[in-house]
Amino acid sequence: MTCSETIDEIGFGGLKLIQDADGFRYGVDAVLLADYADVPRGSAVMDMCTGSGVVPLILYHKYSPRTITGIDFNRRAADLAARSVQLNGLSDVIDIVCADVMDAHSLFGAESFDAVTCNPPYMEKGRGVASGADARHAARHETTAALADFCRAAGHLLKRGGTFTIVHRPSRLADIFECCRSAGLEPKRMRLVAPHAADPANIVLIQAVKGAGKELRTDPLLVVRDGAGGFSPEIMRIYERSSD
Amino acid sequence: MTCSETIDEIGFGGLKLIQDADGFRYGVDAVLLADYADVPRGSAVMDMCTGSGVVPLILYHKYSPRTITGIDFNRRAADLAARSVQLNGLSDVIDIVCADVMDAHSLFGAESFDAVTCNPPYMEKGRGVASGADARHAARHETTAALADFCRAAGHLLKRGGTFTIVHRPSRLADIFECCRSAGLEPKRMRLVAPHAADPANIVLIQAVKGAGKELRTDPLLVVRDGAGGFSPEIMRIYERSSD
Repeated sequence: MTCSETIDEIGFGGLKLIQDADGFRYGVDAVLLADYADVPRGSAVMDMCTGSGVVPLILYHKYSPRTITGIDFNRRAADLAARSVQLNGLSDVIDIVCADVMDAHSLFGAESFDAVTCNPPYMEKGRGVASGADARHAARHETTAALADFCRAAGHLLKRGGTFTIVHRPSRLADIFECCRSAGLEPKRMRLVAPHAADPANIVLIQAVKGAGKELRTDPLLVVRDGAGGFSPEIMRIYERSSD
Repeated sequence: MTCSETIDEIGFGGLKLIQDADGFRYGVDAVLLADYADVPRGSAVMDMCTGSGVVPLILYHKYSPRTITGIDFNRRAADLAARSVQLNGLSDVIDIVCADVMDAHSLFGAESFDAVTCNPPYMEKGRGVASGADARHAARHETTAALADFCRAAGHLLKRGGTFTIVHRPSRLADIFECCRSAGLEPKRMRLVAPHAADPANIVLIQAVKGAGKELRTDPLLVVRDGAGGFSPEIMRIYERSSD
């Protein structure tokens, strides 16, 4: 371990997470994604853009899938994630692989997963101001792979009826739907997330199902903070924290 | 007038609306659509699926466009709408035409409108239980034209930069985005509408712009009823009612 790392207790049954002190650190998005994914007990799950591995760790705690494969193109992120998995004694369940999602179906085989989760970079390729070629930049900007690549990869990796759950910015909603459908993934559930009840949403959660029929269910708005400025009861439930 | 008609005072500066007592009657959807459309003063507007003509009447009151053309395939609806326009003394501004939207650009010319509004039937063609071949059925089910036809027609009728505003069920969101994009209309604004703050949305308002770049703005959730069961302040604003 170098001195620029932190080990954080993140809750969820006492999980520990190793992160770069000055790199990209996990946010509410990852926690919401892991909760929304609702993966079947005993299933095989792939987490794309796994970063520090926080999504596989929380998925394991919440849903007890049989296996979780976390994949990230960034070597440093994959190294941190693999060490966090070891630290939590979950090497039998969670496997971290440093690879490009576009190679994933040749590495793992088509139709080999029941569920795929993805917390991708939010900035579109070539958009936004580049902040340097580091992990923090790669986590925020589409560098090697774009939204369409993640959806296409998920379309290959999933069994029919398998779920693809993605967290993103609402501004990309039309792109997400388009990329999902192009990959044979039909959007079936959507939830907007807003900082406060009267704010525009700044996060969207989407779950698409491979080969499903058309019809989107819209879940109630998820409000992060209640009127008094504390976390809403639903955020407390998702984070598994009591209000004391 | 036959005995099965009603003349309702609908507010908005004293507008009157003739409706069939036992036919399809306008709902909150139409009022929300007219408000969300936000058409430019002095513009040329087309309202598709105009039904009783309530959207053109409210659009005129709220935004003072130069002309509004209301189009409906249903002869009975177009007749009621035309008489409502006369009753309100608005024949110089609002023209009601009984025609198929798919013929609209040959009737009116391509790129002849600044804004198009549409409150289409919500049930997809061939879905749902047919309730009889009457106006109420046609207003609820896609019979002659489908969502893709409305979007395609709007794509032809609009000038570049013109707006297409549609109200629909959130379950069709992916279809709406897909049909808009296929027609060269980029979704730019979206608003979900829920009966109460904790409910799933049951209405969605979308505004797409012809030839615009990608990036969707999500407006805050519009809640119809507040905690006490009365209408929310924003619904009161949209209906132009005071809280007394």
